[in-house]
Amino acid sequence: MVGGGRGAFIGAVHRIAARLDGEFVLVAGALSSDPARARASAVDLGLAPDRSYASYADMARAEAAREDGIEAVAIVTPNHVHYPAAAAFLRAGIHVICDKPLTSTLPDARKLKALAEKSGRVFVLTHNYTGYPMVRQARDMVARGQLGRIRLVQAEYPQDWLTGPVEASGQKQAEWRTDPARTGPGGATGDIGTHAYNLARFVTGLDLKELAADLDSFVPGRRVDDNAHVLLRFAGGAKGMIWASQVAPGHENGLKLRVYGEKGGLEWFQPDPNALWYTPLGEPKRLITRGGAGAGPAAARVTRIPSGHPEGYLEGFANIYQEAARAIRAARAGRKPPKDVVFPTIDDGVEGVAFVTACVASSKRNGAWTKLPL
Amino acid sequence: MVGGGRGAFIGAVHRIAARLDGEFVLVAGALSSDPARARASAVDLGLAPDRSYASYADMARAEAAREDGIEAVAIVTPNHVHYPAAAAFLRAGIHVICDKPLTSTLPDARKLKALAEKSGRVFVLTHNYTGYPMVRQARDMVARGQLGRIRLVQAEYPQDWLTGPVEASGQKQAEWRTDPARTGPGGATGDIGTHAYNLARFVTGLDLKELAADLDSFVPGRRVDDNAHVLLRFAGGAKGMIWASQVAPGHENGLKLRVYGEKGGLEWFQPDPNALWYTPLGEPKRLITRGGAGAGPAAARVTRIPSGHPEGYLEGFANIYQEAARAIRAARAGRKPPKDVVFPTIDDGVEGVAFVTACVASSKRNGAWTKLPL
Amino acid sequence: MVGGGRGAFIGAVHRIAARLDGEFVLVAGALSSDPARARASAVDLGLAPDRSYASYADMARAEAAREDGIEAVAIVTPNHVHYPAAAAFLRAGIHVICDKPLTSTLPDARKLKALAEKSGRVFVLTHNYTGYPMVRQARDMVARGQLGRIRLVQAEYPQDWLTGPVEASGQKQAEWRTDPARTGPGGATGDIGTHAYNLARFVTGLDLKELAADLDSFVPGRRVDDNAHVLLRFAGGAKGMIWASQVAPGHENGLKLRVYGEKGGLEWFQPDPNALWYTPLGEPKRLITRGGAGAGPAAARVTRIPSGHPEGYLEGFANIYQEAARAIRAARAGRKPPKDVVFPTIDDGVEGVAFVTACVASSKRNGAWTKLPL
Amino acid sequence: MVGGGRGAFIGAVHRIAARLDGEFVLVAGALSSDPARARASAVDLGLAPDRSYASYADMARAEAAREDGIEAVAIVTPNHVHYPAAAAFLRAGIHVICDKPLTSTLPDARKLKALAEKSGRVFVLTHNYTGYPMVRQARDMVARGQLGRIRLVQAEYPQDWLTGPVEASGQKQAEWRTDPARTGPGGATGDIGTHAYNLARFVTGLDLKELAADLDSFVPGRRVDDNAHVLLRFAGGAKGMIWASQVAPGHENGLKLRVYGEKGGLEWFQPDPNALWYTPLGEPKRLITRGGAGAGPAAARVTRIPSGHPEGYLEGFANIYQEAARAIRAARAGRKPPKDVVFPTIDDGVEGVAFVTACVASSKRNGAWTKLPL
Repeated sequence: MVGGGRGAFIGAVHRIAARLDGEFVLVAGALSSDPARARASAVDLGLAPDRSYASYADMARAEAAREDGIEAVAIVTPNHVHYPAAAAFLRAGIHVICDKPLTSTLPDARKLKALAEKSGRVFVLTHNYTGYPMVRQARDMVARGQLGRIRLVQAEYPQDWLTGPVEASGQKQAEWRTDPARTGPGGATGDIGTHAYNLARFVTGLDLKELAADLDSFVPGRRVDDNAHVLLRFAGGAKGMIWASQVAPGHENGLKLRVYGEKGGLEWFQPDPNALWYTPLGEPKRLITRGGAGAGPAAARVTRIPSGHPEGYLEGFANIYQEAARAIRAARAGRKPPKDVVFPTIDDGVEGVAFVTACVASSKRNGAWTKLPL
Repeated sequence: MVGGGRGAFIGAVHRIAARLDGEFVLVAGALSSDPARARASAVDLGLAPDRSYASYADMARAEAAREDGIEAVAIVTPNHVHYPAAAAFLRAGIHVICDKPLTSTLPDARKLKALAEKSGRVFVLTHNYTGYPMVRQARDMVARGQLGRIRLVQAEYPQDWLTGPVEASGQKQAEWRTDPARTGPGGATGDIGTHAYNLARFVTGLDLKELAADLDSFVPGRRVDDNAHVLLRFAGGAKGMIWASQVAPGHENGLKLRVYGEKGGLEWFQPDPNALWYTPLGEPKRLITRGGAGAGPAAARVTRIPSGHPEGYLEGFANIYQEAARAIRAARAGRKPPKDVVFPTIDDGVEGVAFVTACVASSKRNGAWTKLPL
Repeated sequence: MVGGGRGAFIGAVHRIAARLDGEFVLVAGALSSDPARARASAVDLGLAPDRSYASYADMARAEAAREDGIEAVAIVTPNHVHYPAAAAFLRAGIHVICDKPLTSTLPDARKLKALAEKSGRVFVLTHNYTGYPMVRQARDMVARGQLGRIRLVQAEYPQDWLTGPVEASGQKQAEWRTDPARTGPGGATGDIGTHAYNLARFVTGLDLKELAADLDSFVPGRRVDDNAHVLLRFAGGAKGMIWASQVAPGHENGLKLRVYGEKGGLEWFQPDPNALWYTPLGEPKRLITRGGAGAGPAAARVTRIPSGHPEGYLEGFANIYQEAARAIRAARAGRKPPKDVVFPTIDDGVEGVAFVTACVASSKRNGAWTKLPL
Repeated sequence: MVGGGRGAFIGAVHRIAARLDGEFVLVAGALSSDPARARASAVDLGLAPDRSYASYADMARAEAAREDGIEAVAIVTPNHVHYPAAAAFLRAGIHVICDKPLTSTLPDARKLKALAEKSGRVFVLTHNYTGYPMVRQARDMVARGQLGRIRLVQAEYPQDWLTGPVEASGQKQAEWRTDPARTGPGGATGDIGTHAYNLARFVTGLDLKELAADLDSFVPGRRVDDNAHVLLRFAGGAKGMIWASQVAPGHENGLKLRVYGEKGGLEWFQPDPNALWYTPLGEPKRLITRGGAGAGPAAARVTRIPSGHPEGYLEGFANIYQEAARAIRAARAGRKPPKDVVFPTIDDGVEGVAFVTACVASSKRNGAWTKLPL
């Protein structure tokens, strides 16, 4: 693991997700760019002292040289480190599981993609919401045509934790996520807008033609956007909206996706992730539950326990790690991953960074329609 | 009543709303442009034969001449008739209660406004959602500063009844609402987008600076928009979104308003209109109920029964009629209405038609930011 | 109207319900047992002075003698007056619409039933929740066998308004509802338990075999029960529970009914009355909405406006008045009411008073199983 | 692990829960009473062949003899094996984590309690719902007096999976859970009624004085109850109801607890476990969320991730394992567990079996009030 030392948030999530199904064991880490914090964090996590590294570069080199070196690395640093760290491990022949967004700049994203393709290593981007069983179910229903041709995609991800100037209080998460040097040019756009956009594409399979964005920094002094209003035009004529906000009091992690086609509609809401609402046009709305009646094989693949006992965020995240494990096992055997293995790839990562880039560009041009720079 | 004969929808609603609190009695009507239907409808409703008129013009003239002539008329026709009918009654010195949108064209709206002002008659526009007690409560909380300075306004009004080509089936409601000659240039925009926009303004009191709209007609052959995606920029810096759709399977009349300020957020949803969700920043979300703890005098004014017993759409609509009655009584006495009497006015009507006009113009200019033509 | 003067609650509800569909006009009243309050209330409501009576006895006599005397009376007094007032009007040949519970004692109920049958007049008991369209829908689905043989009936009606000793504060509603002389032997049992029991029977059509009740008065000094826990055994083997409480903080009028059979289950909740949840065994849960897909003719009969625009408590109550109007029109014509006219009868009233009587008796016998004294 | 081989349900849950926080590693098992299934299951789980045992007796003996023998065993068999298996491991000096109910008979429960006390080993009963953060929060609020003196406890646990005669189809879970020899005298009562009862006691801290139960087997041929209606009387005057059912179509695992006191009410619902609804009397209802505003230290102790990202059933279950780990570490050090460590004990287990025993006895005596045989 690179990053994820004391005071971090997502590192602990990755560790639980990796461990939940028993597929991964954490044995090495460069847990912080601060050496003392890195050491202390390694002790917390029970790493062998010689496998707690001062930098990702050291770690990549040393682990690649060990006979029992790591097979895969999880990169859970602030965004600007994703590129150099991932590059180091790919070059060292180590599979990479990387947090989103892929990188803090589009050039970095492109370089990383080239590198990943050349390396032949597995590259998994943890757009974790795609791991929820009912998101898989939704995707499957769209793919099977149960909604007919898709017309509308309404995605939103409101939060409220940055309603005040939290970054000024020394809160570590707020600090780096509002610092353009570390987070990239988009604030809410990059941090959560990319999730909403990725989810919309994951479920519908639609390609974006262009977008129009109006970004704001409502909190005085904030250096990145904390609210994004985005209009979407997809290839083929579907339209959509994304709203991503970190200044919407009353929302914790209110990611919601609604998809409407000629024959029906779907609604999914992350705080209640075991439910998928499906309305076949002209019939009563139906509640499809994880593990319950109406849930098909795409959801069952990533379901652990019976319906009515909620699986949550960590289980969804762990599903990404499960898929990563399957892909890595296949790679080890010189095969492609089985067809049913589904995870966000480096292409999704490039797409996400391009989305942020286009949002920022459109907003600077007064919301002009802008194509993704792909 | 003008309009509202057999086969109509909103006429019956107006009649119940007018009757619910015993303030109005229906005594005369020009219930249909079709004479036979007008007569038959008058019989259904128990009108005296001599007060069932063949046209609104006849009715305005005759009723104005009667000693016991009507005090007020309700105009519930398709949109294009609003202007000439309202003009006839205003000229005859009769108060007007008119369905929304005000008119089908902006010039008509402006002329009607001039006429109404000159007439000195009461003019009430039935943007009925402003009659819901918890909408009044929300408006009052914003006005009192409980949310702090407003930053975000998210409004939506999804429906699904026009997902298919219903107008081709001879359904009367669908027919005129998709005919630009009768409904005006905006379809969903005019029919329900104006409600969402009016509600947003009613609750927040914000003035719109400009909008950017992307309108679609998803159903082949449809002559007006059936989906509207609109970005909003308010004076003072607040931003917003409106989504109005008639092609979103799973939504019946899903009008929702969410408002976020520096100090808190509010959520209101028309299908559950007795609830108002309020989150003071940093505290647990609270459920304010009509008639219950937390509901103040602005809601109490328009509340009939105790909390927990739901009041619905008709009661909210009837509140507009109650307000109209108060205003008319005041007018009769030569006074202005009391300060706490609140109803949508002809100014709101002009604003609504300007909103539709701007949406259509913006969409034609590829979503360019457009000011309201006021 | 008898009762319903200033300070009353349910009288105003009856007046709106009677007026809502234009079937009834209020022309006479004995609005209060306090003469001054009766007069003042009559002025409020615009009654002719000679039709505001000092007592129900005067009113029954005088109205029966008038050529234009009332056709029907609404009795909305405290419970102990139901019997003598209803008796007076029945004897005078006037149809009766009476609030629930039927009477405050079982002997009164029986006498009233005999009188009503002898009189040949229409007697409607306002168990108003049976007027909700989705309650009609539920009843129809059970009757059609969509749930299969019924096994379980879970009904509850929690409130919180009597959590403290409100009656000691002079609140008029609390005063008489906790006074056994006026309300009868059951407190929560009579006031809301009868509603829950009536609703359970209305929807399922099951007959009760016996019950076991544990009643409490949690508030010190309260003279009637404020919480009732009741077990039910129906003829044919179905079982059930009723929970009625006035001391459950967080509930306003939380009437809920759930019915389960061999083939499916239904859930209905009064604060969200336009929704009926239906689960066919082994299939996803479905949301049937008033006016929407899945709602059949039994609901459509009592539906005024399209789906998604909520109808509430007053509309449900008005449906009882609509049914009363139909029954009275039939009676006037010397016919039985049409088969599809459905309203709670005096038999339901006797059943309700017997339910209260049995609950009190069972509770006194330490919850022994007790048959209804019918 | 004892039990939990192929085809089992709860074994996999225990394994994930044990692994989730990295506190336990699975190294040995007697995974099935069927030797072939035991071996195959051990291979599935990667156990060393010499630590896959043919019986719990062998396993207890052999592991106790190993230097690297297990510290704790998880017993996840059908109920009737809990007693002999737990006894074997306690006698071997090994800590026990045992699924509920404690045993299939009350004498077994008592003997096991004596044995556990004598052994000095940690005994943890996995009434897993007590591990949910918002259940901890509820318990803490009651203990702090935020609800005032408790008056009412309404618990229910409806399911629908046994609505039909599933046990006749060869479904393994249904088979043993409806076989009195393996499950004990109570069916739904033992399987889920004990959860509801345990949760009620855990949150309120109230002691039961007596109960009255009406149990049914609705499915023809079923040998244990599939529905339980229970009235509760607690010491000190609080009253309650438990409904446990396996024949209620539309419910998956609908465990719900509602607690009402003189000053407020609480509602918690297992399918939405991150929410706790709290109504202080006379104030608006509040939504307290796991990790969010209003959640205190008792919840924070067992919270892993930020609010708005749901934690589910497995995390709640894992919290029991976390508490077990803390207790075992303390035991290893010869200390009592820290005061804030909270888990269901063997006393809770005896109480649960006594609850089932009393329910069955009461029901046989026609619902007579019955004390727990403690």
